[in-house]
Parts: sequence; structure tokens; C-alpha cells
Amino acid sequence: MEFAERVHSMTESEIRKGITDAANPDFISLAGGVPDARLFPAAEFRAAYDKVLRDAPGTFLQYGPTEGYGRLREIIAEREQTDVAGILLTSGAQQGLDLLGRLFVDQGSRVLVEDPSYLGALETFRQYGAEFVAVPSDDEGIRVDALEKARFLYTMPNFANPSGRTMSERRRRELVEAARERELVIVEDDAYGDLRYEGEPVPNLSILDPRVIRIGSFSKVLAPGLRVGWIRAEPQVIRKLVHLKERSDLCGAFGAQMAVAEVSAILPTHVKTLIETYRPRRDAMIDALTEFCPQVRWRKPEGGFFVWCELPVDARNLDVKDVAFVRGGKFHATRPRHNTMRLSFAGVEPDRIREAVRRIGEALS
Amino acid sequence: MEFAERVHSMTESEIRKGITDAANPDFISLAGGVPDARLFPAAEFRAAYDKVLRDAPGTFLQYGPTEGYGRLREIIAEREQTDVAGILLTSGAQQGLDLLGRLFVDQGSRVLVEDPSYLGALETFRQYGAEFVAVPSDDEGIRVDALEKARFLYTMPNFANPSGRTMSERRRRELVEAARERELVIVEDDAYGDLRYEGEPVPNLSILDPRVIRIGSFSKVLAPGLRVGWIRAEPQVIRKLVHLKERSDLCGAFGAQMAVAEVSAILPTHVKTLIETYRPRRDAMIDALTEFCPQVRWRKPEGGFFVWCELPVDARNLDVKDVAFVRGGKFHATRPRHNTMRLSFAGVEPDRIREAVRRIGEALS
Repeated sequence: MEFAERVHSMTESEIRKGITDAANPDFISLAGGVPDARLFPAAEFRAAYDKVLRDAPGTFLQYGPTEGYGRLREIIAEREQTDVAGILLTSGAQQGLDLLGRLFVDQGSRVLVEDPSYLGALETFRQYGAEFVAVPSDDEGIRVDALEKARFLYTMPNFANPSGRTMSERRRRELVEAARERELVIVEDDAYGDLRYEGEPVPNLSILDPRVIRIGSFSKVLAPGLRVGWIRAEPQVIRKLVHLKERSDLCGAFGAQMAVAEVSAILPTHVKTLIETYRPRRDAMIDALTEFCPQVRWRKPEGGFFVWCELPVDARNLDVKDVAFVRGGKFHATRPRHNTMRLSFAGVEPDRIREAVRRIGEALS
Repeated sequence: MEFAERVHSMTESEIRKGITDAANPDFISLAGGVPDARLFPAAEFRAAYDKVLRDAPGTFLQYGPTEGYGRLREIIAEREQTDVAGILLTSGAQQGLDLLGRLFVDQGSRVLVEDPSYLGALETFRQYGAEFVAVPSDDEGIRVDALEKARFLYTMPNFANPSGRTMSERRRRELVEAARERELVIVEDDAYGDLRYEGEPVPNLSILDPRVIRIGSFSKVLAPGLRVGWIRAEPQVIRKLVHLKERSDLCGAFGAQMAVAEVSAILPTHVKTLIETYRPRRDAMIDALTEFCPQVRWRKPEGGFFVWCELPVDARNLDVKDVAFVRGGKFHATRPRHNTMRLSFAGVEPDRIREAVRRIGEALS
């Protein structure tokens, strides 16, 4: 059996590890970028599925348009301040990344990424042949003076996975301006943007320039099992992506899109609940790092799920009994650095976070 | 904006056209390979969704394993007479095709296909760089003596889309034997296999040789909007496909997989109902072709959705008022033939099928 080139070096995606973990009650996972299942609006989804299966079973169960369920596209278009022709529904943000990889990446195409950058994006673009160029960042975000020529720039401007970093408004304006001058396509991934725990919201890149291609998702603010994300782009780009999605899976799971449209009215209050739950977890992690891990360098994220850590040791040699975390090596697209790790505070309660970080500090000293 | 090579010549998938069509009551579509929505077990799905969202909302709404929902994999493994490690759930059969395209096809890889062959497969494999080789067929199916060296052979042995053809048991045995000798991978797509209207079932290729990779789907026997299909393959192939699916969409829509597992108990009786509904539609189409289109050559399918027609004229010049059908040109992977068309009888009642075929006969004469 002769496989295609792209699969030769392919292994299990790192981001999938740690999502399903031990039944050991002592075990604490800070690994996966997984929302807390206790926060899912389950009753609302039960009612929503019942309503759409009662009112429109034929729409729910039949093939639907590849673009996705019209009403949900309208809801997203309104939030995104754009027209419905600029919205394509995808099977989670991950399918958005995959479709954009197919749209832009040939063997050897240069793709600009942050360092570190989201592993799910790196692995997806890499299979299509991407050659990554890491763009240096400073405290305000990507250094615009360091942009090189490439097919596109992939960035997470809000509470990035894994760095937790947020790009300043001034830097965003400089970035879209520079991209316009250089005809550089920007892909903005904003899976975590609604989960801000402090500070003022900063305008999305796609609001500053409608040519920016934007990836969004309901996975972190409603529930990931639904697999409902979207791409916002100019209509001529959406049309190309529709052709690629036809070849990928014909169309999405329509029922989940209909249910999300029903449930989306709760988003403003539900997001408040999420923020009130996740903020003390972030604070517990920051406090515990300060107390137990003085030798670790980290950045306090203004939102999202992650604290990115630089260690005084090689993370590959760091084993912490009954604590899972993600070693940082693979998040570096070009030159592996092994003194980094990603901690997620989303799925664990504050006292357990404190205990896990205490164990990490113990292992480090 | 510079796009990847693969999208340069890409247009709307032909198979998506005609799926959404006119509100004109006089209009009859024989175009899409779309099941009749009136036959969907909607009440059963409403009850199933309610049950799984009541009993296991956390499983429904959270990220799940990329392989898919365990209980449904078990149900399929039992039907397929294999182990659960040999089953991967996909977003419809189309995602199965896409993942296999990624697994096997490099730029210029040779892929053996029937002539005509399923357009959704051709378009998907082509984007990864497939060079097609059409294998000639006779009345029993693919001519085994004409097999050439290639990455794999793609075939629909039961009631093929679009040809309606079924491979004889003798030919299947010859085919798996020849493939074993030549180390040729076989991909068996069996989206329609349960819908047999006459004759005895013939063993699946994957039953004759477990190295055959098999694609299946609930789209035609339950409902396509759920997007639940599967791949059956040897476990080491499944593992590679899991890595590709991680990069594609992380995991499927778990809720739909759970609902299908609940509803699957009705399959034996439900499939009987489908057969009793679709058989008279097939018969009406065959009778009408005999009566109204004596100049057309066709083959009576033993199952499935399609009658494939050879015309005395170029189908591109055939316009039939208020009747939709699919012109055959694009189903031919290597040399376009334009005197062919595909008619689907699945979505239309017998008297309407008769009227549509009458109109076609009128347009031809």
C-alpha cells in the first residue's frame, strides 16, 4: 500500500492528546483546550432540537446547501457586521482552517505564523505543503516591520492559543495597513474572542479591513460537539471555499446549525456566565504560578483558556505526577524550543488548578 | 490574492446542482441523488435526540474521539462483520472519499475508475492531483484483465452511481484475487447497497477480502442531513485516516452519531419500506423509457436511485421544459462523452416520473 507524501510523517495530532484522560480522581488535566462540560446549555439545546425536529424535520434531515443553514448565517452576518454572502458555516473552526489550507497552500507555499502558533493550524497547513515563516512579536503583537512575502499570514489576535497574547489596537491598524500595501492576505482566527476577562475589547482585524478572512466558532461559547464554526470573507472567496467544502463533505450537519440558531439568543447572558466562571480559574492559575513557580516566566492572558510558560528546563524532561499539560515544542513552527509549555485553566476548578500548579512547582524544584 | 493550484479550475460541483430546485409545481427533478424526505423517520429521530440529550448531554455537546461514537462504531462493525478498530465514522460518505483522497493521492497518482464513475469521487480525488485511468467494464462489471498499475481502484459494485450497474459475484472474486496478486488497493463505495429491488444480494468486496477499504453511509437509508457515514478498513489504515480527520475537522458531530445509534434498530423494517417505495418508481421509469424513449439505451438497475441513459443526441443540446436531469459528460473521467445522462427516480412518485420521461421522449423526437 503506497500512501501519499503528506501522510508519511503524520502522527496523532498533539492537540487531541489529553482530551480524553484518566479516571484517576487525583489526576488533573491542564492539557486540552476543552470547555467545561458542566457549563453547556444542555436544557436549551434539548428544547431547541425538539423544536426544530418538530417544526422542520425535512430541513433537518435532508441534504442542505453547502453554505449552511440560512438563518444561522444571517445571525452570524449581523454579529460580524457583514452580508450573509460573506458567511460560510463550517464543521468547527478546524474545518475553516482546512478549507483555507486547501484554498491557499501549494507545496512550498510560504505561510507567516506567530511563534508560538496554534498547532491545529500548523498541522493542517503543513499537510498541504506549507513552509512556515515565524514572524517575531513584541508586547503589542506581531511586528509589522518584520512581515515577509507569503501566501497569507495566520494570526490569533485575541488571547491566542497557545500564547495567551492579545494584539493592541494600534498594532492591528498598522497590520491591516501594511497587509494592504503588500497585498498580503490575513487570516484571523478568533475562537476565543468573546471570552475576555479584563480590559476593553479591541476591534477585530476584519472590522478594520473587510478583506481580512476571519474564522469563528461556537465551540468555546456554546458547545464544541455541535461542530459549528464559520468563515467570514469577501463573497468571491466564500464561493471558492464552498466548492472546496462540496468536495470535503457536501454540506454540514444541518440539525446542529438549526439548533445553534435557536439557542443563540442566550449568547449574551451565557457568555457572561462563562466569563464569571473562567476568570477566577485564570486568576487561580496566575496566583499559583506566582506562589509555586517563581522560576517560570508567563504572561497573564486577558481572556481565553491558556497561560503560556517558559521554563528553566527542557519540558520534555518534566514529568509531573497526575498532572497533564502540553509541552510547547510543536507550537513552534520553524525552530523547536523545548523550554515551553501550555497550561489550560478552562476545565478545572480554582482549588484543583492551585493543586496542579503546586505539583508542577514541586517537580521543577 | 494567490490561490493554490488545485482551485484554479474548480467550479460548483455538478452533483450539488439540482438538489435545490424550483418551486414551480409543474417542474419535475430527476437530477439529484437525493432520498425522498417524506420517507425520513422523523418521529424516531425526534425521540432519539430527546433521549440522548436527556441521558448524556455532556457526551453530545463535548469534543469526542475522532474515531466517532463508540456504540455506533460497534453497531456498524457488527453489520460489517469486522472489529470496531476497523471502523471510522465520517461526515457522510463524501468525507470518506476526501480522507481516502488525502491518504493515497499525490500529484500525478494514477487512480483506476469505472467509466462512468461517481462525480463526487472524481472531483475530490482530482483536487489532490489524481490522474484517472478508466477501466473498461462488461455486463458483469470491471474487466479484471484490463487492470493497470495504480495507487488504488475506486468502484461502486452495487447499483453504481451513475451507471446503475452491479458487479457479479464471480467477477468480484476475480477482482479481489487479481488485486491481491498485483498489490492493488480497492476502495469499495457502497452508499446504495441496502436498496436492492430484485435479485439476490452479492457479497461485498470487503467480505471477500478484508484488505478492501469500504465506504458506507446512512444518508440513503436513514437521512443525509445527519452527515453520518463510515470507512471500514484494516486498523492500521484507520489510524492513518484518524490523523487526517483530526486535521480536517477534529471530530464529527457527536449528537447525530448518537441519534443514529438509537434509531438504527429500525433499519431492517425501514429499509423494507424504502424498497417498497422506490421499486415502483424504478419500474415506472423503466416502463416510461420503454414506451416514450425507444431511441434511448438504458440498463435496468437492480437497486439504488439511478438509470443511466445513452442518447442518440448530444445531451448538452437536450433541453426538456420543466424537467431536470444530469448530463453525463462529467461522469466520464478520462474522455468526455456527451451522449449520456443520469436519471434519478428516488424523489418522485411514479405518475410524475412517467410524465417527466414522456417529456424527455417528446424533446428527443
